[in-house]
Amino acid sequence: MEIRYADRVGSIKPSAIRELLKLTQQPGVISFAGGNPAPESFPIDQLKQASAKVLDEQGKSALQYSTTEGYKPLREFIAKRMNNSGIDIEADQILITNGSQQGLDFSGKLFIDEGDVVICESPSYIGALNAFRAYMPKFVEVEMDDDGMKMDELEKALKENPKAKFIYTVPTYQNPTARTMSLERRERLVHLAVEYKIPILEDNPYGDLIFEGEKILPIKHFDTKGIVIYLGTFSKTFCPGLRLGWVAASPEILRKYVLAKQGADLHTNTMSQIELAKFIEMFDFEAHVEMVRNIYKRKRDAMINTMKEEFPSNLKYTYPNGGMFTWVELPEGIDAAEILKKSLEHKVAFVPGSSFYPNGGNENHFRLNYGTMPEELIVEGIKRLGKVLREL
Amino acid sequence: MEIRYADRVGSIKPSAIRELLKLTQQPGVISFAGGNPAPESFPIDQLKQASAKVLDEQGKSALQYSTTEGYKPLREFIAKRMNNSGIDIEADQILITNGSQQGLDFSGKLFIDEGDVVICESPSYIGALNAFRAYMPKFVEVEMDDDGMKMDELEKALKENPKAKFIYTVPTYQNPTARTMSLERRERLVHLAVEYKIPILEDNPYGDLIFEGEKILPIKHFDTKGIVIYLGTFSKTFCPGLRLGWVAASPEILRKYVLAKQGADLHTNTMSQIELAKFIEMFDFEAHVEMVRNIYKRKRDAMINTMKEEFPSNLKYTYPNGGMFTWVELPEGIDAAEILKKSLEHKVAFVPGSSFYPNGGNENHFRLNYGTMPEELIVEGIKRLGKVLREL
Repeated sequence: MEIRYADRVGSIKPSAIRELLKLTQQPGVISFAGGNPAPESFPIDQLKQASAKVLDEQGKSALQYSTTEGYKPLREFIAKRMNNSGIDIEADQILITNGSQQGLDFSGKLFIDEGDVVICESPSYIGALNAFRAYMPKFVEVEMDDDGMKMDELEKALKENPKAKFIYTVPTYQNPTARTMSLERRERLVHLAVEYKIPILEDNPYGDLIFEGEKILPIKHFDTKGIVIYLGTFSKTFCPGLRLGWVAASPEILRKYVLAKQGADLHTNTMSQIELAKFIEMFDFEAHVEMVRNIYKRKRDAMINTMKEEFPSNLKYTYPNGGMFTWVELPEGIDAAEILKKSLEHKVAFVPGSSFYPNGGNENHFRLNYGTMPEELIVEGIKRLGKVLREL
Repeated sequence: MEIRYADRVGSIKPSAIRELLKLTQQPGVISFAGGNPAPESFPIDQLKQASAKVLDEQGKSALQYSTTEGYKPLREFIAKRMNNSGIDIEADQILITNGSQQGLDFSGKLFIDEGDVVICESPSYIGALNAFRAYMPKFVEVEMDDDGMKMDELEKALKENPKAKFIYTVPTYQNPTARTMSLERRERLVHLAVEYKIPILEDNPYGDLIFEGEKILPIKHFDTKGIVIYLGTFSKTFCPGLRLGWVAASPEILRKYVLAKQGADLHTNTMSQIELAKFIEMFDFEAHVEMVRNIYKRKRDAMINTMKEEFPSNLKYTYPNGGMFTWVELPEGIDAAEILKKSLEHKVAFVPGSSFYPNGGNENHFRLNYGTMPEELIVEGIKRLGKVLREL
């Protein structure tokens, strides 16, 4: 029997990365493909203590239905931490979500009618593009350089698309490019958004994974009109398995996200929210983040130092000052998907770049993640990949 | 600044129940309003053991990203248990979701274009109606009697709405009425669905909470064409705080749900899935469900026996052979919302019935949940409510 789905089903595509991950999870493959955090950074023993304490002290409420907005002490912690990063926000402007991916889905649900324009970086985070696609937008890509989205290009896009619904950006250690938007551009971005009356979706999963330099102010810092919607996550600073992220927005906008959440799954896992709050109460969260940061910094060094030695010297790639990725540019006309085929023969995987461009093209790029593998395998994998690249 | 949302935002309404819950959570209120399971049924100590074991044995994978489909041993357990209930299904036809509410949201996302018809029971589960509303359907309600949806009325609705997208039903111990669809009607329902080429969404959160009689075969038992989509949950047999439910469907249909899940939040909480699987491995799940069943049976008895004594004898209400609710019918012209106001003066809360009717009306009904409160408060609350009702 033929099933009649909604029109949007034609737009819901499998994530190239998650499909690829199935291939790369074969034993022996050195994978730079996924976005998995370093498992050695997970605070397993401390979480065990926190979990036992939660079940002892408040088991009944930890296992019960809870409010859609989320566990108040966790929201208070998030608000305080955002205050410290330069954002003026209160706990009741925070909604706890199942990872920031759910915040992306809700953003699509709340803003996108079929055919609406979403403005994003070129390239952009593939999980966001997939979440938005279910609501059938058109994507207008804005070119980047090492300082992030080019503001003149953005203004051109805003002029040409007066009914665009929001600007999506990962401004800090972007996935996939590792680029960070400069402070000047952040301020100009907010000015443009106010001028063109369009919300900004600031997705900041990597901001805490800073290796060098000073922490940059978030875009939301410049938001005096309540038009920046901020997405955060504990997936990189704590662990992704508990699916804990958040949306922070003006009270009016947040109310819409809360209603979307209510219909979508009532609320986020109560136990995991309380566990994390207990972990924060029992242990030093900032010291934990510092430990995580150091893990990624060592891995970044292992990857980039090996790339310097093993990659052909005419290849360009970004130097990540934070986050989990580096972005490699091949000479024009070379298809990264072809390189992947050869690389997989040597049991090394990565993600070809074209799927990060919502409108396709740009086949001569690929993304490497140094977050997941141990250092010795990073070195070994980059050596093998370097051999493949030198044979071009 | 005025924010331009998507059109669907106008249809996303706050859940009357969840808003009401905020009022009823004041100290001292005896609440028959929410759908909260009995907290004394939660296996806190066993879960503590299971949780510690999971973190000891497989902490790194329990805290890592995992597959969208869900944890294989848990899906295998669900499939086996569904087999035992008379459904022919395999583990890879199961998708783990954040409670069955998420399966409802995905059903809306996958099937409903603006203006499409959803056929449902009259009255129906409010959480489902709210999830569907975000996709802007029209609801066609089918009258029920004590044997569930009337099949002649359903056939009429199908004839009048040839492009209806699915039939939504809670066939066993329905929320809000506690009614169970008869076996004959279940079989006829599947025949009608095949004839009119329309999928059935069978939502079965309460089937395990059976107090008397023999377990009835699920609608999916009669499904030879792969058109019944089955939603299950551990929220009532285990606990709701971990947000663990599932969708079971034909491989073709399930694939769409998996893609929806991928975009919506990548996957369900890894830790909670593995914890539940470990609980099932370490303890006797069926014995646990039997314990839970007995708790609700005693509460059902406490409520219904007190209603017999305290309620005016001309009031009709359903006798629940399972589940968590009874459904009260007031004389025509009396508004349950008015009764609620008076009842709240005596610190007793319940949910007025009209919000369970997607097209409104039927103000002379209300729903009582006996699941949450301890027996002595059930008795006390019903006494107070009886007094209010007798004063009519």
